[in-house]
Amino acid sequence: MSQPQYSELVSLHGHIIDSLILAKVLDTILMMGGSFDLQEVRIGVTREQPSRARILVQAPSEELLAEILTAIQPHGAAPEVDRDCEVEPAPVDGVLPDRFYATSHLPTQVRLGGHWVPVEPIEMDTAIRVDPVKRCAGIVPMAEVRKGDLVVVGRSGVRVQPLSRPARRDVFGFMEAQVSSERPHAPLIADIAKRMQALRTSFRQGHPASKILLAGGPAIVHAGGRDALTWLVESGFVQVLFCGNALAAHDMEATLFGTSLGYGLAAGRTMPHGHEHHLRTINRIRGIGSIEEAVRQGVITTGIMAACVKQGVQIVMAGTIRDDGPLPGVITDSMQAQAAMRAALPDVGLALLVASTLHAVATGNLLPATVPTVCVDVNPSVPTKLADRGSFQAVGLVMDAASFLKELARELGWKP
Amino acid sequence: MSQPQYSELVSLHGHIIDSLILAKVLDTILMMGGSFDLQEVRIGVTREQPSRARILVQAPSEELLAEILTAIQPHGAAPEVDRDCEVEPAPVDGVLPDRFYATSHLPTQVRLGGHWVPVEPIEMDTAIRVDPVKRCAGIVPMAEVRKGDLVVVGRSGVRVQPLSRPARRDVFGFMEAQVSSERPHAPLIADIAKRMQALRTSFRQGHPASKILLAGGPAIVHAGGRDALTWLVESGFVQVLFCGNALAAHDMEATLFGTSLGYGLAAGRTMPHGHEHHLRTINRIRGIGSIEEAVRQGVITTGIMAACVKQGVQIVMAGTIRDDGPLPGVITDSMQAQAAMRAALPDVGLALLVASTLHAVATGNLLPATVPTVCVDVNPSVPTKLADRGSFQAVGLVMDAASFLKELARELGWKP
Amino acid sequence: MSQPQYSELVSLHGHIIDSLILAKVLDTILMMGGSFDLQEVRIGVTREQPSRARILVQAPSEELLAEILTAIQPHGAAPEVDRDCEVEPAPVDGVLPDRFYATSHLPTQVRLGGHWVPVEPIEMDTAIRVDPVKRCAGIVPMAEVRKGDLVVVGRSGVRVQPLSRPARRDVFGFMEAQVSSERPHAPLIADIAKRMQALRTSFRQGHPASKILLAGGPAIVHAGGRDALTWLVESGFVQVLFCGNALAAHDMEATLFGTSLGYGLAAGRTMPHGHEHHLRTINRIRGIGSIEEAVRQGVITTGIMAACVKQGVQIVMAGTIRDDGPLPGVITDSMQAQAAMRAALPDVGLALLVASTLHAVATGNLLPATVPTVCVDVNPSVPTKLADRGSFQAVGLVMDAASFLKELARELGWKP
Amino acid sequence: MSQPQYSELVSLHGHIIDSLILAKVLDTILMMGGSFDLQEVRIGVTREQPSRARILVQAPSEELLAEILTAIQPHGAAPEVDRDCEVEPAPVDGVLPDRFYATSHLPTQVRLGGHWVPVEPIEMDTAIRVDPVKRCAGIVPMAEVRKGDLVVVGRSGVRVQPLSRPARRDVFGFMEAQVSSERPHAPLIADIAKRMQALRTSFRQGHPASKILLAGGPAIVHAGGRDALTWLVESGFVQVLFCGNALAAHDMEATLFGTSLGYGLAAGRTMPHGHEHHLRTINRIRGIGSIEEAVRQGVITTGIMAACVKQGVQIVMAGTIRDDGPLPGVITDSMQAQAAMRAALPDVGLALLVASTLHAVATGNLLPATVPTVCVDVNPSVPTKLADRGSFQAVGLVMDAASFLKELARELGWKP
Repeated sequence: MSQPQYSELVSLHGHIIDSLILAKVLDTILMMGGSFDLQEVRIGVTREQPSRARILVQAPSEELLAEILTAIQPHGAAPEVDRDCEVEPAPVDGVLPDRFYATSHLPTQVRLGGHWVPVEPIEMDTAIRVDPVKRCAGIVPMAEVRKGDLVVVGRSGVRVQPLSRPARRDVFGFMEAQVSSERPHAPLIADIAKRMQALRTSFRQGHPASKILLAGGPAIVHAGGRDALTWLVESGFVQVLFCGNALAAHDMEATLFGTSLGYGLAAGRTMPHGHEHHLRTINRIRGIGSIEEAVRQGVITTGIMAACVKQGVQIVMAGTIRDDGPLPGVITDSMQAQAAMRAALPDVGLALLVASTLHAVATGNLLPATVPTVCVDVNPSVPTKLADRGSFQAVGLVMDAASFLKELARELGWKP
Repeated sequence: MSQPQYSELVSLHGHIIDSLILAKVLDTILMMGGSFDLQEVRIGVTREQPSRARILVQAPSEELLAEILTAIQPHGAAPEVDRDCEVEPAPVDGVLPDRFYATSHLPTQVRLGGHWVPVEPIEMDTAIRVDPVKRCAGIVPMAEVRKGDLVVVGRSGVRVQPLSRPARRDVFGFMEAQVSSERPHAPLIADIAKRMQALRTSFRQGHPASKILLAGGPAIVHAGGRDALTWLVESGFVQVLFCGNALAAHDMEATLFGTSLGYGLAAGRTMPHGHEHHLRTINRIRGIGSIEEAVRQGVITTGIMAACVKQGVQIVMAGTIRDDGPLPGVITDSMQAQAAMRAALPDVGLALLVASTLHAVATGNLLPATVPTVCVDVNPSVPTKLADRGSFQAVGLVMDAASFLKELARELGWKP
Repeated sequence: MSQPQYSELVSLHGHIIDSLILAKVLDTILMMGGSFDLQEVRIGVTREQPSRARILVQAPSEELLAEILTAIQPHGAAPEVDRDCEVEPAPVDGVLPDRFYATSHLPTQVRLGGHWVPVEPIEMDTAIRVDPVKRCAGIVPMAEVRKGDLVVVGRSGVRVQPLSRPARRDVFGFMEAQVSSERPHAPLIADIAKRMQALRTSFRQGHPASKILLAGGPAIVHAGGRDALTWLVESGFVQVLFCGNALAAHDMEATLFGTSLGYGLAAGRTMPHGHEHHLRTINRIRGIGSIEEAVRQGVITTGIMAACVKQGVQIVMAGTIRDDGPLPGVITDSMQAQAAMRAALPDVGLALLVASTLHAVATGNLLPATVPTVCVDVNPSVPTKLADRGSFQAVGLVMDAASFLKELARELGWKP
Repeated sequence: MSQPQYSELVSLHGHIIDSLILAKVLDTILMMGGSFDLQEVRIGVTREQPSRARILVQAPSEELLAEILTAIQPHGAAPEVDRDCEVEPAPVDGVLPDRFYATSHLPTQVRLGGHWVPVEPIEMDTAIRVDPVKRCAGIVPMAEVRKGDLVVVGRSGVRVQPLSRPARRDVFGFMEAQVSSERPHAPLIADIAKRMQALRTSFRQGHPASKILLAGGPAIVHAGGRDALTWLVESGFVQVLFCGNALAAHDMEATLFGTSLGYGLAAGRTMPHGHEHHLRTINRIRGIGSIEEAVRQGVITTGIMAACVKQGVQIVMAGTIRDDGPLPGVITDSMQAQAAMRAALPDVGLALLVASTLHAVATGNLLPATVPTVCVDVNPSVPTKLADRGSFQAVGLVMDAASFLKELARELGWKP
């Protein structure tokens, strides 16, 4: 029974007890088929004092040991011995070196010339490209790497910093996934509103990390949340909007063809003319040339898109194979759309992902774990997926988009 | 109370009683705020004899009358007087004439020079482009129209043929949406299998409309349906595959990194290495250059993609903003991807839409109503959405992708 | 191919065209394997004039013919020849005669001594018990039949009256199931509110069929809808409450142990003390003896139950195997609870079924098809199930209980 | 800012690190608004050695301190000083002393006369009744307590033993909730099958805790899982069946009226005759007197109930307000049904909760945390609810009942 022959000593620092980090690391080791010896555990006797543990990780094969070490690294478990990170050049454009280090969404540092350098901004499932001369590091998506770029390989010299519980005592400070339809929404929405109030103030004062991002699906308009969201935009509570062709088209259709509510009611689901309005709206804006121009010309005077244009909200519209049209401004290439979303994320201090699985997951993939994220959907699987990203900062609400936006806007002062 | 002042006489032909068509037309008129007089109803006294009705549609305003006529047209309600269709040239590239006729997914004809000409293949939410010289008509998506193209406008000279109940007595012959988790799946799957058997035979004999399309999401692999789908492909039950980057990557990851099942279990959801394998798989195939080449070189020897390549299955992979990589072969531009999907649809005689909302809806938008369609998802809202397209030919199953594919393959002779 | 040898002539009257009735009858005949000849169809040429059809139903076997006739009867298809209904005595207590007629939830008449007598109130899945002397008929649930009771058997002399579209133009007047999370809730809730306003006035004037029933689950309290529902009760918008042990206990727990919201937030899901409060609340009320007494003594001063007691709302609390306690007043025997619910239904003019599958389905089973019914649940399968009862009068909303009740109360004048 | 003035010293023992227990306790303290000092932490340096921590819990008010201590007690946090438990007599029948100790579902001991005595079997949300003379303790549901019974009050002298990770390496050994529709079901089902194989052997050898319980809903029959479940029962893989009226009635309807599948297909959802068969089945069995007698007389020869009767499976059928009939044998009183379920649970070594929210939650409430539990439902919220009970032993599968039972039976040797 004396199988484990391969081992490596790793250490953990920080609030590893009350953040569950130590427990998760040990759990991971055991579940993957390894074992451990706790060489040393020093626990801070007050909440402020950090703790420290040294763990001898053991596994029956070298491959498994490597996998375990990879798996526990995002929890901050780093080899004891500090070495510089190892780099290799990308072999051709768009292809990473075989052994490239794959990032998580947690704060990450690499060791270059004996110094720990932050990888900023971090994004998960990318590689790390370094410039040893300037001693700086950043992420690079696979498709954007160019031949010869120096890419970090292996695990040495890479340090991941697990999140500690946020200082603020609000809904984002929980340990466990916050997704339930049987939970009172009001206090969660109140907490979110408070964050938004604070962020608006910070943004107006020019502070970094103070933008509010809303990524939303067309159900916002279908379900009747258009007025509330328009008010939120007009009131300065949204700085970045991620959406698709459908949200924008439905919103402007409401302007051009009168309220869609009456028609939706009268027509029922098998009526074609509702969808015809959708197509005519898109065609009209294509004729004008751009949403911005349609707003400028006074064709689109009300609603979400008009408010965004007037408020200078940064809009990224990404295309999909479901789209009619699409509207001018929709980025039909998914990699270009991803790049545009990525470029809009620095300085986002709160992300609201509302009623769009696609945008919720895509945005979740791009966001650092440190950005508080709220995911709202009437289907519990979407918020669950997001809240499962293993961070303290993701909150899910199982409710319809319109009810959420109305409650949120009311909490922030909307008088419908 | 004598409001209705605007009226038009329309007629309905065919199996308008037992197909609910007459009832739906009258319902639509009333619900939209109009009224009607039935001028004449002749009903075939046996099932084979067609029926005929003449309806005076009345409305209090000209706009509403036009909307009602538009709304009932897809049920086959056509103005009594036959006129040629009206056309206008597209004003600029990518923009349709304002009054363009918006298509449904039902068989449609336009009248050109006194002759009724079919619009083939039909697709919903597009325009109709005609060539008066050659007397032919086809659909044109908004983005593909070129300046000067002659596009049908208004409603005159356009005839829509409602579906009559299919002759065959199987699951596709029902009137009502077939979506329930409380329904026995076995007989539905047996009916689908019978269709697939018949289509395979037809396809091998070179008959048209005999291809089987599978549009699927990555849950097929996650949930354990990979072996069953591979067998279906190898056995000639799939001729066209619509998928995204994730399905292909997960499938090939299983080949390259051993079974993902063991790892999935050991790792749990917060493990990063599972996702690392995903990235490494994509990077590897990018290095090789194409999936086809990876299969040819013997790198990818098993699974869905290998089977598709070996069987000559037509693959359309569409990109999204969620993608890592993406794999070579993924069409990142959504309009180009849509065009590739559209080009692959003629000759499809059965569509299986499995565990992908995006692909299910996008494919549903492109398919004529005459193509029998099966939508499978563990979330009831997806099959409901598809089955709501108002055709007899759409069936929804609320079950997980793996269970569906396994049952289907077993029904067709798979011995796992 | 001349199989059909068994036939019977049936007739249909009323608005059989625009109510889809003729179409559904023909569809049913064909789908079950029979065939038909339309002997005569006379269609009213205006909406007011009723139509009439005579259909020769044919089937290859006598059994199938009987099944088809049974299946089309709820659509109003009655044999041409009028005969008195046939009766048999119940063989023993609690057991019906083998051939008992099973009711639908549609208005039903039986022919006794040459006269058509209404079965009132109607309820589905019961039998019909007649008193030939007094010439009256009523339903009897299986468990309540007594030996010797005269029970209708077979199909002769039973007439079912299909619903015609309601005269009022609101959300309850649609033909198709109204369940979607992508539909604007606001106009539906506005329609419901209008009905409630009108019913409150009717009720205060002593009109029949003017009570409003709310059947609700504990998520009303969990999710934060307690204040809104309390206001609705206090404002006279609820006359009957169906609930279980949990709704009442959670509601009173909020009174006894301070707001449950703060605790719910602080405690998270694995905290036992929340549930302890639940138990202590039940124990406290058990000690006092009844909810009414607890309100009278000033122990329970706020919330739903207090409002119901003060307003004289009729409360039926039904027990389940999930219950703690239960509270005094909970009817633990399911048949007795069903009987109590049944007894409370006459004079109900609107049923709101909120966030409780059990109560929604149980109440739906007891309600005549003529009572407008709204089913609200964040899980689309519950509203779908209810809306599928085949009546014009059932509406489903996919939204969380709290958002629904808040919107509804606001629409009716609530100022939170 | 020196608020915390109330404090108590508690200690934790066992595998408190790798079971997350210490982390959860500290998290709970902080989240509820308290603070802590870790007075001593001794951590076993190998996995086998237990750890120990002493924690000074602090709170700004005495009430909050008491609540925190109550909340952390189920994690095994016990006051340092050992005292006998405190008892009070129940004031009247069915009412507990005000300060009664409310149980969790974890193994629990009380201190009587200086000795720690187990409370067996444990059940959550009940009280503890002690016999100081015989020195024994058991749970007592609120409704069953009799005046004068000695009931434990307060927290002193009560010790809860948190679960440590099970020794066996299978699906039940995970830390985190195992609910996802995107997870491969096959290996989970294989693990469950292995447990069932081992339990069947144990049961046949007369070992305790070796019975397999299946609690199921009617969707098992609807969705086509009847044959698989029948086989499981016949093969000795089920010893206890919890169900309602509907499962039993649907199962026997299939025997009496031919396969329900054909009819279900032909009839569609609005057909009454399907439900008529349901009623006739119930009436028939009521006439015979019992399910057992119907099987004995050869009326019910096939299916789940027949197999259960022949195999001597213990059946508990609980009534609800949704029931038609009900069948003889259905316990209509919910408290009596609960008591019957409770009585059937000792010796259950595995619980399968399939497609019934009501039975799943009710059974989950009655089961000790030590019994491995599998919850299967196509709606993810049900398995999530069960898996959230905070134990290592609960596993959820998001799949339809029929697919689950078929896969499970196939894994165990079924050849359909």
